[in-house]
Amino acid sequence: MPTARRGRRPGGEDTRALILEAARAEFAAAGYDGTSVRAVARAAGVDPRLVHHYFDGKSSLFAAVIAVPVNPAERVQVAVAGPPEGIGERLVRTLVSTWDEPVARDALVGVVRSAMGSQALTEQLRGFVVGELMMRVVRAHPVSADLSRDELTLRAGLLGAQMVGLVVGRYVVGMAGLRDASAEELVARVGPAVQAILETGSPHGIRGVAPDE
Amino acid sequence: MPTARRGRRPGGEDTRALILEAARAEFAAAGYDGTSVRAVARAAGVDPRLVHHYFDGKSSLFAAVIAVPVNPAERVQVAVAGPPEGIGERLVRTLVSTWDEPVARDALVGVVRSAMGSQALTEQLRGFVVGELMMRVVRAHPVSADLSRDELTLRAGLLGAQMVGLVVGRYVVGMAGLRDASAEELVARVGPAVQAILETGSPHGIRGVAPDE
Repeated sequence: MPTARRGRRPGGEDTRALILEAARAEFAAAGYDGTSVRAVARAAGVDPRLVHHYFDGKSSLFAAVIAVPVNPAERVQVAVAGPPEGIGERLVRTLVSTWDEPVARDALVGVVRSAMGSQALTEQLRGFVVGELMMRVVRAHPVSADLSRDELTLRAGLLGAQMVGLVVGRYVVGMAGLRDASAEELVARVGPAVQAILETGSPHGIRGVAPDE
Repeated sequence: MPTARRGRRPGGEDTRALILEAARAEFAAAGYDGTSVRAVARAAGVDPRLVHHYFDGKSSLFAAVIAVPVNPAERVQVAVAGPPEGIGERLVRTLVSTWDEPVARDALVGVVRSAMGSQALTEQLRGFVVGELMMRVVRAHPVSADLSRDELTLRAGLLGAQMVGLVVGRYVVGMAGLRDASAEELVARVGPAVQAILETGSPHGIRGVAPDE
């Protein structure tokens, strides 16, 4: 039976939220491999069987953790809407403001650290971040209509590298220059690099576009 | 007593090299947390006590592994020598050609994966990569003489993010667009972004430099 940590018998939604909150902190602190359902249950003050009642196991718990507290695809969609020449700055601003929220940061840093220790998770996240999120950004720029499939993929990868570098540098590793910079300083410095990826032509990337178009 | 894997009794240098080779493969495959001295000894075909004879423990073994097979500081020094306007492209070319060597890649991917799972290693590597390597790059550009300490640190961080993003995207995570691009394609795409970090002025970063200098 669950031990109610806050002096009351938790209802279903409360218990699930309590477990998720504990799991988020555990994954962030110990990574995917270093976290057990038992440790999550202990941190949440519930019986491990109760964790299994709400989640199929550790990977399902992790999937639930990375699904909260933000929906990355929604935020990216909002960032890319609007004038194409500002996509780079808006994307960096969205990324930094999302990760700067402490609750989101803990969850997301946990995701990154965990993914590095698990080939399966790496592949899961790669598909989500590059194939889904970054491809949305590439396709939001009008020039994308004239690009080959290979060029779209390369641009999504280059954007992914920008995002991963910024995230790892500022939040996971904590490089002094990036950790201490203001959000707008990063928007001003990294935004143009992101925009350049969306706009720079490749000699063999653009099909059927005359040079003056 | 050591078990000689190659049918002879190994001398000191041979045995040490054998252990290092095994450790490099283990760290690359399992990360820092997932690797034990026992597993390294087993892979090397020697008694664990022999590993302890040559290395103080797992962290000392790891330090020896990340010191080989390339000296990153030497390669960066060679890359930044020469005309300042080509530093960005030369740095990316050096990074990619170094990591594209299979032996170096295994060692370095192991370093990255391991660092993600260990706060102590993260801090060690951060100091080396940003404080040492990237700061060398920033200082190699003549404009650095007129920059504040904060601006130098920010630039080193921004460069670190570029390198980390490229490395994680191409080698650790294997994002399709980056994994499949040729070295020269990456030089052409990422080089200018690196160069822009070295050359772009910050409104409050440059001290005592007139706009026309």
